[in-house]
Amino acid sequence: MLINGVPGDQVSVHDRGLLYGDGIFRTLRVIDGYIQYWPRHYRKLQQDCSALHITCPEAALLFKELRYLIEQRLDGVAKIIITRGEQVTRGYAAVENMIPTRILSFTPALNYPDKNYSHGVRLRLCDLRLAHQLKLAGIKHLNRLENVLAAAEWSDPDIAEGLLLDIFGNVIEGIRSNLFMVRNGELFTPNLSNCGVAGIQRERVIEWAAEHGVPCWIQQFGLAELLIADEIFLVNSVIGLWPVRELAGSEWSHHPISMQVQEWLNHAHD
Amino acid sequence: MLINGVPGDQVSVHDRGLLYGDGIFRTLRVIDGYIQYWPRHYRKLQQDCSALHITCPEAALLFKELRYLIEQRLDGVAKIIITRGEQVTRGYAAVENMIPTRILSFTPALNYPDKNYSHGVRLRLCDLRLAHQLKLAGIKHLNRLENVLAAAEWSDPDIAEGLLLDIFGNVIEGIRSNLFMVRNGELFTPNLSNCGVAGIQRERVIEWAAEHGVPCWIQQFGLAELLIADEIFLVNSVIGLWPVRELAGSEWSHHPISMQVQEWLNHAHD
Repeated sequence: MLINGVPGDQVSVHDRGLLYGDGIFRTLRVIDGYIQYWPRHYRKLQQDCSALHITCPEAALLFKELRYLIEQRLDGVAKIIITRGEQVTRGYAAVENMIPTRILSFTPALNYPDKNYSHGVRLRLCDLRLAHQLKLAGIKHLNRLENVLAAAEWSDPDIAEGLLLDIFGNVIEGIRSNLFMVRNGELFTPNLSNCGVAGIQRERVIEWAAEHGVPCWIQQFGLAELLIADEIFLVNSVIGLWPVRELAGSEWSHHPISMQVQEWLNHAHD
Repeated sequence: MLINGVPGDQVSVHDRGLLYGDGIFRTLRVIDGYIQYWPRHYRKLQQDCSALHITCPEAALLFKELRYLIEQRLDGVAKIIITRGEQVTRGYAAVENMIPTRILSFTPALNYPDKNYSHGVRLRLCDLRLAHQLKLAGIKHLNRLENVLAAAEWSDPDIAEGLLLDIFGNVIEGIRSNLFMVRNGELFTPNLSNCGVAGIQRERVIEWAAEHGVPCWIQQFGLAELLIADEIFLVNSVIGLWPVRELAGSEWSHHPISMQVQEWLNHAHD
């Protein structure tokens, strides 16, 4: 791990990342030593930092540090955390001109079961409902207790992901993934302007649709609509794409469009 | 500072407090070496830990460590952070039987201006609206980006606190305080079952009302009702009680009931 460019695994207890969750993060897939979607990830880091008025470290600096960490370890997951920095004085109000803390780490790739990709996953409908916070919607920030509580709702290892609705019952996302449904050959993905995290892989799928002349609608929809979809799939930067084979008693065994998108995501470079 | 009982000022970057804001905290006023409201603070620590399924450290252990920290420093603010602990594996789902991290610190008391207590403070109406999250309402957890963003809305040092409404326009609390209004000799304080932090000092004021035969209503009310209140005051464990002298163009110059409560809070022990 590198903390502000120095090998180590400790941060100050005065870091606002710890005190208030005052920071953002990203997880990046590393395949054959290549950092997938780096320019997009950096752009999103910049946007998220900007939304919280945190100074984003330079792309060249982060990239150099990532390369140092990855070195010979060819496959895995890199994580970047940027916090607002250390502050010794008490209080929520940040002092001016803070120097952000950057925490970079690398973990060897988790091996997800092949059947998650080929046959799809079981998705749990979570009890927890996502709150609406316009000022934080879409941002991958460090205030992740909703995700933590939702992930604690089940222990069956055969359920790969949890589905999150918002407080009004709109479908929003998976705990760690974005969601798409397919209906009559068209794609639908939830509007994330009130809550949720807008991920890189979601952007990629929207682009796939545009490139292939498939309509893709970003809009509100509820559970009832989701359950009668022709296909459902989940995406994120680390897992790629998993079709959904079961949710709330409904089952799906054919995922033709999901598979086309999966194939494209696996081979298209960016 | 003491981290798990050992002097230091660093925590692991694998601590879920940093990774997800997965923890809780409390700030305690220390006066003449006496830790104010310790039994209440501990009870609230237990409740908050329990709500997040974090194992709460024993009261005797925390108390002994606080005493060690405070030592000869008679006046100040002690802070206790309890996180779910360190976890090296990736993901929102916590592993079982985690050992929580306890971070105890002590800061010499901030000297708030006397006029905050005698003449009252100016209160800003914040733009940020608090989200509704039933599973987190009332808990003093480490996901505090809403407070951070609200506190960043102004820089005028003459404004001592920010007023937070929820997404439906209900009055909820100050950024770091609970709020009461006085109307026709009765107290009203917002219902915190959807959002907000239910503090120790709020409990104390509710008890003051009960002891003095003053009706105290815990209910929803909006800004319009607040602005025609006879008095408004703010409380927390560290500041005690500040009357409000100005909010959104309305002014208050007499605070007779606020002053009675303030006097009682200053002298009643618990």
